[in-house]
Amino acid sequence: MERTLTSQIAEKIGEKVLLKGWIYQLRELGTVNFLVLRDRSGLCQIILDSPEEIEKLRGMQSETVIEVEGMVVEEKRAAQGAEIHDAKVKILVPVTETLPVVINKKELDVNLDTLLDFRPITMRNVKQQAIFRIHGACQEAYRQFMQNFGATEFFPPYLLEGSSEGSTELFTVEYFDRTAKLTQSAQLYKQIGVGVYERVYGIAKCFRAEKYGTSRHTTEATQYEFVMGFIDSMTDVMDTLHDCIKYIVDYVKENCSKDLALLGKEILDVPSKFPTMTMSEVHEVVFKESDGKVDERNQPDLSPEEERILGQWAKREHKSGYVFVTHYPRKKRAFYSMPDPENPDLTLSFDCIAASGEEDGFEICSGAIRINEYELLKQSAIDKGIDPTTIQDYLNIFKYGMPYHGGFGMGVERFTQSLLGFHNIREVTMYPRDVNRLRP
Amino acid sequence: MERTLTSQIAEKIGEKVLLKGWIYQLRELGTVNFLVLRDRSGLCQIILDSPEEIEKLRGMQSETVIEVEGMVVEEKRAAQGAEIHDAKVKILVPVTETLPVVINKKELDVNLDTLLDFRPITMRNVKQQAIFRIHGACQEAYRQFMQNFGATEFFPPYLLEGSSEGSTELFTVEYFDRTAKLTQSAQLYKQIGVGVYERVYGIAKCFRAEKYGTSRHTTEATQYEFVMGFIDSMTDVMDTLHDCIKYIVDYVKENCSKDLALLGKEILDVPSKFPTMTMSEVHEVVFKESDGKVDERNQPDLSPEEERILGQWAKREHKSGYVFVTHYPRKKRAFYSMPDPENPDLTLSFDCIAASGEEDGFEICSGAIRINEYELLKQSAIDKGIDPTTIQDYLNIFKYGMPYHGGFGMGVERFTQSLLGFHNIREVTMYPRDVNRLRP
Repeated sequence: MERTLTSQIAEKIGEKVLLKGWIYQLRELGTVNFLVLRDRSGLCQIILDSPEEIEKLRGMQSETVIEVEGMVVEEKRAAQGAEIHDAKVKILVPVTETLPVVINKKELDVNLDTLLDFRPITMRNVKQQAIFRIHGACQEAYRQFMQNFGATEFFPPYLLEGSSEGSTELFTVEYFDRTAKLTQSAQLYKQIGVGVYERVYGIAKCFRAEKYGTSRHTTEATQYEFVMGFIDSMTDVMDTLHDCIKYIVDYVKENCSKDLALLGKEILDVPSKFPTMTMSEVHEVVFKESDGKVDERNQPDLSPEEERILGQWAKREHKSGYVFVTHYPRKKRAFYSMPDPENPDLTLSFDCIAASGEEDGFEICSGAIRINEYELLKQSAIDKGIDPTTIQDYLNIFKYGMPYHGGFGMGVERFTQSLLGFHNIREVTMYPRDVNRLRP
Repeated sequence: MERTLTSQIAEKIGEKVLLKGWIYQLRELGTVNFLVLRDRSGLCQIILDSPEEIEKLRGMQSETVIEVEGMVVEEKRAAQGAEIHDAKVKILVPVTETLPVVINKKELDVNLDTLLDFRPITMRNVKQQAIFRIHGACQEAYRQFMQNFGATEFFPPYLLEGSSEGSTELFTVEYFDRTAKLTQSAQLYKQIGVGVYERVYGIAKCFRAEKYGTSRHTTEATQYEFVMGFIDSMTDVMDTLHDCIKYIVDYVKENCSKDLALLGKEILDVPSKFPTMTMSEVHEVVFKESDGKVDERNQPDLSPEEERILGQWAKREHKSGYVFVTHYPRKKRAFYSMPDPENPDLTLSFDCIAASGEEDGFEICSGAIRINEYELLKQSAIDKGIDPTTIQDYLNIFKYGMPYHGGFGMGVERFTQSLLGFHNIREVTMYPRDVNRLRP
């Protein structure tokens, strides 16, 4: 008999079906047992009343792999609107050890370390499954948006001879008789793409040897990369990012409604425009919002506290889960950020602060107009104390005709973290890595 | 005025347009100059007859970034079916150095090392652009196929504490006060996914510290990963791979016809079934095909020479660019390959040999049924001389209910290499890495 998925049984009431999956729960109530089976499409209740069938399951732990043949009977109270009667069970792969964590409840009752230590098992939990389906849907939506936008995918390398742009905190790799570095950013390679395809996108890993283990940092993260050439101003980049975020959010709401409901997450609609202000203006807003308690008006960057408050403010005042902050000072941005022609101490740069889920605001994306002329770029490196000969590979591209361009890098895990309102980025990272964690 | 792409001018005959792009060619013919402009959509011819405009371009090298305003005039002989007259040029970013390689010819007249050394520039060549658009289209098609197939994306980590499956030739990374290894395969993580989502897919990098620099090996490669659970036999996996390859090839033929024409590549249609035989049978076929000159009938694996001959044979006899070879000996396959119940010296394994382009056959994909029971897997590791305690993380998953499953790993670059018939994998790898190459 051909296999039926648990999600399909409601269409087969009165028919005999063959289900395959895992024992999710087994409840013994005297002579009748209730078996819940899990497969890739969901859960399904099975009534076992023959002593012979019940006997087969003796000693079998949850997650035992089974086949069940039985009759589909309508049952409005069951999750699928039907359940299985007259079931015959066949054990395919017995599990005889108790699982290290209880996964067959909606909520996993474990701390973060245990969740991650046993990720291969905890991911089987239905809510955990949902998180990573949504995480995948975000990435799929991003790709769709970029293809519709006429961008071409680029494929940056991860092993480099050295820093391509003078970065620090690089991991060193023993590479035959020399050393290599792990990439910290696809910046150079995406800019190369502007000279080829004008608009390029990609999803790329970046590795950062950052010792501190905050709730938003891992050593192995993923970035949504994008850059576009022949633009008029930074607004073109910000508008594209806005449209991209809107596309992703709409896609997730449309395609992952079951998973969102399972997680109990409601996602704000994306407004037609994000509130946008300069970094200096944010200092003022936060100062007022906090009744003068948070005063960073002399600081060259936003503090995490300011990002939190800004996120709350945008949700409340603008019903927006996202805010653009522009014009960060040159001293806080990379040397390749374009100086603001109206104030050369500032750059044509922006961050996107997100607070779309239950969490307060934090930065999920950085963007800018990038310097596109060789001499200006070289001088900007020198101004920042970078020896241009150490980044000559990077600089050389700009000798051969690079149009005015800008782009962004958005954290793939941070985006999902914010969207679903998780406190720690590790909850949306399938196999997070940090100073303490290299397993599983 | 809003920008028009060169590909759109035929729709605007008689209108004034604004083009933006790069100087592709500039031919001076006395008082009239022919300027060819390149943008992301193609090339377009521009007639310059005003001395003032010609003067602006003096000293400007190809790849100079320009704007051109002019009138669209029908011209059947031009590539776009139209050209630009009465042009006014504006230099946006001058290029004053001659390019290190000549890129404005259809064929790049450079050797492979030069092609790769100057990839940021050589990729601007129209044929080179086409290669990587097709490479991206293959990956897009793979994702679409897998999503339609109900598979869920998984996200393996690249930094590992050690080998998860006893592999050698791993790169070592200095990881704070200890060392980490770069992943060589997503095998463990994709198998974990079977217990969660039954069917998982992903495009993942793998790093191999292989010193030899053949035309099919790089140190940083990419894999199409796939695994499916609850299957009946290896045929389920091979059928899925066949359908996946067919989907990709059909997609490329449909969506990349312009690029294929530009490259002068014709791609064989994928037949409804690939020729399939055991490894022993291939030895016999090759023996006959070579008139007894290639006799590997006692060997436990196929030689590259046999793969080449097999590819030719399949194209000629079956009009198929792909062949399945099954039942490789246990001693040649990884410990997690399922032994063949009918002959325990063999495994339920297969390779896919491709010869779809002009090149002869070579292996692009390996697949197998994987052992899904803890004790059997542990014993298989021991039989192979692997200390099970070194792979306990890997083994543990199999204590908790893993259904019968199988999958494949297919080289992303090798697939495109074969599809387009390139001799060297580096030609389809945007930024290849090998023992000698870590740049650009």
